[in-house]
Amino acid sequence: MIRMECDYSEGAHPWILQRLLDTNLEQSPGYGTDGYCDRARELIRSACHAPQAAVEFLVGGTQANATVIAASLRPYQGAVCADTGHIHVHETGAVEAAGHKILPLPSLDGKLLPQDLEQLCAAHFADPSREHMVQPGMVYLSHPTECGTLYTRQELEEIRKVCDRWSLPLFIDGARCGYGLAAEGADVDLPDLARLAHVFTIGGTKVGALFGEAVVMPDPGLLPDFRYMIKRHGGMLAKGRLLGIQFETLFEDDLYRQLGRHAVELAGQIRAALQRQGIPQRFPTTANQIFAVFTPEQRARLEESFLFSFWEGLPDGRVVLRICTSWATSAGDVDALCAALAEL
Amino acid sequence: MIRMECDYSEGAHPWILQRLLDTNLEQSPGYGTDGYCDRARELIRSACHAPQAAVEFLVGGTQANATVIAASLRPYQGAVCADTGHIHVHETGAVEAAGHKILPLPSLDGKLLPQDLEQLCAAHFADPSREHMVQPGMVYLSHPTECGTLYTRQELEEIRKVCDRWSLPLFIDGARCGYGLAAEGADVDLPDLARLAHVFTIGGTKVGALFGEAVVMPDPGLLPDFRYMIKRHGGMLAKGRLLGIQFETLFEDDLYRQLGRHAVELAGQIRAALQRQGIPQRFPTTANQIFAVFTPEQRARLEESFLFSFWEGLPDGRVVLRICTSWATSAGDVDALCAALAEL
Amino acid sequence: MIRMECDYSEGAHPWILQRLLDTNLEQSPGYGTDGYCDRARELIRSACHAPQAAVEFLVGGTQANATVIAASLRPYQGAVCADTGHIHVHETGAVEAAGHKILPLPSLDGKLLPQDLEQLCAAHFADPSREHMVQPGMVYLSHPTECGTLYTRQELEEIRKVCDRWSLPLFIDGARCGYGLAAEGADVDLPDLARLAHVFTIGGTKVGALFGEAVVMPDPGLLPDFRYMIKRHGGMLAKGRLLGIQFETLFEDDLYRQLGRHAVELAGQIRAALQRQGIPQRFPTTANQIFAVFTPEQRARLEESFLFSFWEGLPDGRVVLRICTSWATSAGDVDALCAALAEL
Amino acid sequence: MIRMECDYSEGAHPWILQRLLDTNLEQSPGYGTDGYCDRARELIRSACHAPQAAVEFLVGGTQANATVIAASLRPYQGAVCADTGHIHVHETGAVEAAGHKILPLPSLDGKLLPQDLEQLCAAHFADPSREHMVQPGMVYLSHPTECGTLYTRQELEEIRKVCDRWSLPLFIDGARCGYGLAAEGADVDLPDLARLAHVFTIGGTKVGALFGEAVVMPDPGLLPDFRYMIKRHGGMLAKGRLLGIQFETLFEDDLYRQLGRHAVELAGQIRAALQRQGIPQRFPTTANQIFAVFTPEQRARLEESFLFSFWEGLPDGRVVLRICTSWATSAGDVDALCAALAEL
Repeated sequence: MIRMECDYSEGAHPWILQRLLDTNLEQSPGYGTDGYCDRARELIRSACHAPQAAVEFLVGGTQANATVIAASLRPYQGAVCADTGHIHVHETGAVEAAGHKILPLPSLDGKLLPQDLEQLCAAHFADPSREHMVQPGMVYLSHPTECGTLYTRQELEEIRKVCDRWSLPLFIDGARCGYGLAAEGADVDLPDLARLAHVFTIGGTKVGALFGEAVVMPDPGLLPDFRYMIKRHGGMLAKGRLLGIQFETLFEDDLYRQLGRHAVELAGQIRAALQRQGIPQRFPTTANQIFAVFTPEQRARLEESFLFSFWEGLPDGRVVLRICTSWATSAGDVDALCAALAEL
Repeated sequence: MIRMECDYSEGAHPWILQRLLDTNLEQSPGYGTDGYCDRARELIRSACHAPQAAVEFLVGGTQANATVIAASLRPYQGAVCADTGHIHVHETGAVEAAGHKILPLPSLDGKLLPQDLEQLCAAHFADPSREHMVQPGMVYLSHPTECGTLYTRQELEEIRKVCDRWSLPLFIDGARCGYGLAAEGADVDLPDLARLAHVFTIGGTKVGALFGEAVVMPDPGLLPDFRYMIKRHGGMLAKGRLLGIQFETLFEDDLYRQLGRHAVELAGQIRAALQRQGIPQRFPTTANQIFAVFTPEQRARLEESFLFSFWEGLPDGRVVLRICTSWATSAGDVDALCAALAEL
Repeated sequence: MIRMECDYSEGAHPWILQRLLDTNLEQSPGYGTDGYCDRARELIRSACHAPQAAVEFLVGGTQANATVIAASLRPYQGAVCADTGHIHVHETGAVEAAGHKILPLPSLDGKLLPQDLEQLCAAHFADPSREHMVQPGMVYLSHPTECGTLYTRQELEEIRKVCDRWSLPLFIDGARCGYGLAAEGADVDLPDLARLAHVFTIGGTKVGALFGEAVVMPDPGLLPDFRYMIKRHGGMLAKGRLLGIQFETLFEDDLYRQLGRHAVELAGQIRAALQRQGIPQRFPTTANQIFAVFTPEQRARLEESFLFSFWEGLPDGRVVLRICTSWATSAGDVDALCAALAEL
Repeated sequence: MIRMECDYSEGAHPWILQRLLDTNLEQSPGYGTDGYCDRARELIRSACHAPQAAVEFLVGGTQANATVIAASLRPYQGAVCADTGHIHVHETGAVEAAGHKILPLPSLDGKLLPQDLEQLCAAHFADPSREHMVQPGMVYLSHPTECGTLYTRQELEEIRKVCDRWSLPLFIDGARCGYGLAAEGADVDLPDLARLAHVFTIGGTKVGALFGEAVVMPDPGLLPDFRYMIKRHGGMLAKGRLLGIQFETLFEDDLYRQLGRHAVELAGQIRAALQRQGIPQRFPTTANQIFAVFTPEQRARLEESFLFSFWEGLPDGRVVLRICTSWATSAGDVDALCAALAEL
């Protein structure tokens, strides 16, 4: 059975494991204050063209999201996001656990629309009863989105304009940003994220690391005492260097970008195979995720050999299955899938 | 500079890294539902003589403590602990972040006394104004304690009796339990923990793993839906098998116990060297931590070559420094320290 | 200017003030443990045919809702409600402040549909990834709803059936229940609420009291230690007897029911006047709230003499205004409004 | 039985009830936006010599404390207070419910010492591991204290100096400040509170009102959006004018001060009677609370006719009982008590 249901089925890129081996018995201070973390921070600042950025490393995505949001909001404020947003749908209320409501907006292919955001804010601040409602306090979006789609640079700029108008920090969840950066036709790069987001994450877990997300704050004064927040949320890894070593490896020699390209190229082959068969896709994706619409018969045939993730059933009986490639997907597995698709 | 200031300065036992390498490109389901986690659960159940136990793996200690406590209490309840307890002093309010007060009791050498616990509970439940106070809802203790000391089996039994009398679950934080089990004269073993605690942790981070704490609930019905709580607290590792692989390795072939013995033996050599020099110890420890009382001159001499952790200053100008051994401490480093002590 | 924009513009029914005067210098114990509270509890138990019910008095509605919900849920659970629900829209995140997500369902005229509730629960508990989502933990509805409508007895029975199937407590917010009980054709009475809800409130603030909501739990074992929760949420009134005296007055001599009938009769006159003019109503209400659809010109004319509350603008330029009657509305004011409507 | 166990056994000063009666059927907007609240704000600003102050009215003390503290702190910060502080001991964890640890300091007669505060802050901010600990984020004290004692102006000035040095807002809980202002030899007046506290409360519940606490922020920009916080904490009274009317009455014609003086004078008579009998007092109080040390025999005799509140048992078998006077205490009751004391 070939697993293509997510992008975290394997361990880590071999270079990362090798580096962990090489440094294993070195002694270092804990909690992210070691030299590896410092060097990884420097590499990330450089890749983002954000020389002053504060960079912290957390173990996982839910933890990173919840910590950033809790650190950014006042108690009576909420985080605006697309109604498909990960924080809204798939984090078991981790944001609410810190006391904050999520304010979902309708989404288009997983993306937040600037006009909806503008309308929400304008309506809130014009409402004489607004003290009875949760105040919009920040904006969360993911790039790529939950639907595998990407914002264009212009879309992000327009969202940022609305954020500025209402003094809302913009938080971009980049759990899969490695695949977004490498997507065909992508016009958003790390320096764009650093310019357009007040805080964003660069995901390691899904892009070659064992685990780990880098939280980047281009203005280092954005969240003073953020490290207290990490500890309070249980996210301060004792052997913090494990995160430093991994991100150092990913951001040396362009590895992070290479891993992204690898997955995106293989996804492109799958997309082409789907198109050849006339199999529709639910969302117009260009990065590493594909949401293909199969008939029950097609699904049954494919699931004899492949594992995908169920996304939704359509009214006509067809199903949407998510197919993921990753840094670890082999060309052979993709060839096998393309062959299977050709036989449908 | 030889680091002996804590027990998490190095990476992981080589067998663990090897196992991570061996399994690296295998594909597995996420979030702790893989075969490695299942096998690790089975090995832990067996080591604890708790065949029905629910076992979950979390990344770190603060996370494990906060999640267990939040899962155990009703909102108006607090966790009773020693005033030196890690949750009270060194977790940046992670328990309070979930809405719970900590109810500290005076401690003796880091240990909670059953009579204090009894008195607190008796006083609370007899107080006609008790609804104006936080209700004791569970008991937290660590074994070994923050002061490196160990409870005797009888002490734990007496505490458990008080817990039973007041219907309080007993939670034992075993972040360093590997060293406690191996301590000289220790009479508390894993099956004792499983018999006496309602829930306890077995620490990996400080005892040979890269990271990871096993949460063990001998009665699997104790905290239904505990996995929702893990996710809500940001503690559900995507590549959960990393935890399974590590704990599987630690609990095969008695590795966990061997690592504990190694550290304890080396700590014993340091204790003997201190005694030979007449250097007092602040707490009567028998596991891997030593709290030695040095004069400023002694401290300065030692700190030319060794890194310890500062514990407290005494009124007479002397200082208490914590010396830790671990699974990774080398005999050579301990010899060097003993030689340095002999020259004081 | 005649205020009809809400049902809490005046003070209290004169009998209540008189009773406060009569008892003013009596001395009583605090925090709801006095004889007035006890007697009010007894009267409410009797009116509800719930002889065992636990009854507590809180100052306000948001406080009552947040306290009941926080007391009812486990941390990873959420409260299901209509997307128009007061807790979701107009309580500034008081439920989220206690760490709980609200799970809104589409509503029809402000009412929750049992089939939507069933579907949500069935989908959640069938989802293999459910641990990544907030678990439905209780159901909240208001009667009358935010849209002024009423559930029929059968509708409540069907919702309760779904609740029972999924073991969800049903919480009915009766902030305006006095008007609901008295509505034309209403077939839900207090004993129905006590039979169908696990916990419900009887609102005083909007129905003749200065302030105060009674929380009724027909099964007194439902929320043990609920009074700790009241205190924790800042809702335990020092001079608790103020609440007891008010509810005692309301539930003696059928006053609560009379006040409800008064408002409902006057609302009926306004509804008739609207119908005579062919002015549509946004929701089919029968209690004390009317949501009338006016043209801008009509609105301008009316607002020269009357204060209503703005509900929403319609695409065609018309506006929905909420008109409320209450226990304190005078027949003269309603006559004036009917006359003004007749002149439109 | 004469109740002297607390200062909230009766209703309200007759002038307040009369004013409620007089205004009962007036219509006013809700939630504290009415003219009575505005006028009460103006009277309080004037009494405090704080012409710009923001003033909000909340129903109760626990609510006011929890709301102010939650509005003032960042999530990783705690509130420093005396270990006897009401928020620490008698509010069922309302502060922790908002996610904040309380950092208690040893107290002398219920008072916080500036040097302890300085030491706590200096130690925290000098500690390289401070990110693992809750950061001191504000200072809470009550005046009068839980032990009935008063800070001198100089003591408050010294505490404020420490607060300024560490940028900590100072919050003074004035639940009983009416009695503190009127105490014999008191040198702290409302303008002092307004000058020395960043935020303070003026208690109505215990000083002549039915209920209500005024929260005063001399700098109106201190807590922007504080009213959202009030709503979120369930503290926004629908008929907010009830609070406005009460505080207007208290601050017109010097009533608040008169009520304070009345209670303090009667307390002085009781203190004199105790001294004549050689009955010691546990704390050196000068306002409306007395903590008298009785033998069991004395206690039994007194409790035949009087109700006091039990404070603590002493090792020698004697007990400390709290005796309270209030605005409502009658001279006759005090005479009776003095006579009873004289017969001991």
